[in-house]
Amino acid sequence: MSSRVTILGPGLLGGSLALALKARTAAHVTVWGRRAESVGEIARSGCTDAATTDLTAAAKDADVIVFATPVEVMAPLARQITPVLKSSALVMDVGSVKANVVSELAPIFAGPGRFIGCHPMAGSEQTGFAAARADLFDGSVCILTPDDATPRDAIADATVFWQSVGCTTRTLAPAEHDQIVAWISHLPHLLAAALVQTVADHSPAAFDFAGPGFRDTTRIASGPPDMWTGILGQNRAAVRIAVDGLIEKLRALSTLLSDPAAEKREPLIHRLLNQAKAQRDRLRLPKTPSDA
Amino acid sequence: MSSRVTILGPGLLGGSLALALKARTAAHVTVWGRRAESVGEIARSGCTDAATTDLTAAAKDADVIVFATPVEVMAPLARQITPVLKSSALVMDVGSVKANVVSELAPIFAGPGRFIGCHPMAGSEQTGFAAARADLFDGSVCILTPDDATPRDAIADATVFWQSVGCTTRTLAPAEHDQIVAWISHLPHLLAAALVQTVADHSPAAFDFAGPGFRDTTRIASGPPDMWTGILGQNRAAVRIAVDGLIEKLRALSTLLSDPAAEKREPLIHRLLNQAKAQRDRLRLPKTPSDA
Repeated sequence: MSSRVTILGPGLLGGSLALALKARTAAHVTVWGRRAESVGEIARSGCTDAATTDLTAAAKDADVIVFATPVEVMAPLARQITPVLKSSALVMDVGSVKANVVSELAPIFAGPGRFIGCHPMAGSEQTGFAAARADLFDGSVCILTPDDATPRDAIADATVFWQSVGCTTRTLAPAEHDQIVAWISHLPHLLAAALVQTVADHSPAAFDFAGPGFRDTTRIASGPPDMWTGILGQNRAAVRIAVDGLIEKLRALSTLLSDPAAEKREPLIHRLLNQAKAQRDRLRLPKTPSDA
Repeated sequence: MSSRVTILGPGLLGGSLALALKARTAAHVTVWGRRAESVGEIARSGCTDAATTDLTAAAKDADVIVFATPVEVMAPLARQITPVLKSSALVMDVGSVKANVVSELAPIFAGPGRFIGCHPMAGSEQTGFAAARADLFDGSVCILTPDDATPRDAIADATVFWQSVGCTTRTLAPAEHDQIVAWISHLPHLLAAALVQTVADHSPAAFDFAGPGFRDTTRIASGPPDMWTGILGQNRAAVRIAVDGLIEKLRALSTLLSDPAAEKREPLIHRLLNQAKAQRDRLRLPKTPSDA
């Protein structure tokens, strides 16, 4: 990876990607941001080759462009850069919901550029360049979401790109991606927030006794509300199915707990806990880094 | 703390307590276990002064006795040790549910010994002496649950004891304790297991894409099913109220997600996420140690 990479968006993900590319590859890295203040922070840090608020300048010589901005602004930015874009440029986004983004961005880059949707399953509850880390992607999965129009070589090049910063890659169709992350990412996020607010509503005094279990179960409730409101809204049909599935499971547990007969109740609760433990112990999970 | 401490139960909590006492105090530490195998493991480790399967020998000269066994076996063990117990001995348990245990054990120690229920809010999803750590209690809260019959000096001595291994202490009545931990500990545990099993039921392929959020939200689902079946059963009325409270919150969220009007839906979802973030960011939580 000795090419020119431009990252649009100087937040946790964009910043970490810049740091990872500089730490692990020979890429020339430019970061574009809308606000002079955040661009200045990156420029002063000296850890990228360039940082600018000039979108055209950032885009025009890039071999690779990565959209790491809020999803809402991707299409307008995309339309601004197509006139100056190299026709061979690999264009990727890192949004958490793919069907909408891919259907919006892919047609814009049908002319110049080779677009492919991507979702690196990395991050933390923190935000901004100050929280960026060169090892954020280490050992995480990046899901590539090509559709029928995606150029073959874009899949191959995106694979090499994400592997160069420490990801393993998987490929899913955009809609399939959105179904899967509803269960494994969006449901846990909503749940962490719902758990905090349920305790706040019913027993705020209990917060004084929060231990490591509550800390970890609710960590992602500290994530950025703007971003997550967008994610949950874009994927709301799939997220709702997931929430309803969880409600059904919790209802069954509540009914179990209501049974005063320990000899009937306990084997069923034990079985659920046992199956959940066996399942979770089997998972291949990213190592606990400093983000926890 | 230069006294003789006997810990009944060589598991994660009992083992960590032994390590913490040896690391931080001058206490003479004996660990009792039912099985020769686990006692042998501790004896060979050389990190306690004694390890034995002889309950009477372990109890008879102790100034402090800590029950770190499963709750079900505490009362029978208690009855076996009272004949040899020093009348001044401070007796504590570390069970996660207190009303039952206190009402069972306090009368047994109304003669010899000074009993007080305790609940150090420390632990991990791991079990056994092999997972024990001298810093397990560091920065955690230990809840003392005296009742009307608890000797005053038992409260003071238990406070000094738990502070000596790194805990801060709080005092709650046993029933009040059980209400509070239903929200802050038992509900999150059940929820972590329910989340794993909901994904297993509906979208097992999603497990391949589990990232750091899912890892942390479900960590405690890897905890010991036997112990947790007991805890949830003993506190089932309070846990059920907590589960029902969460179901209600999730139902409201599901209804919100069903609203196709973004301008109505998004402010309400944003408000929930924002309040949850603000609340969680305010919490004083134990630092992330190597248990995560």
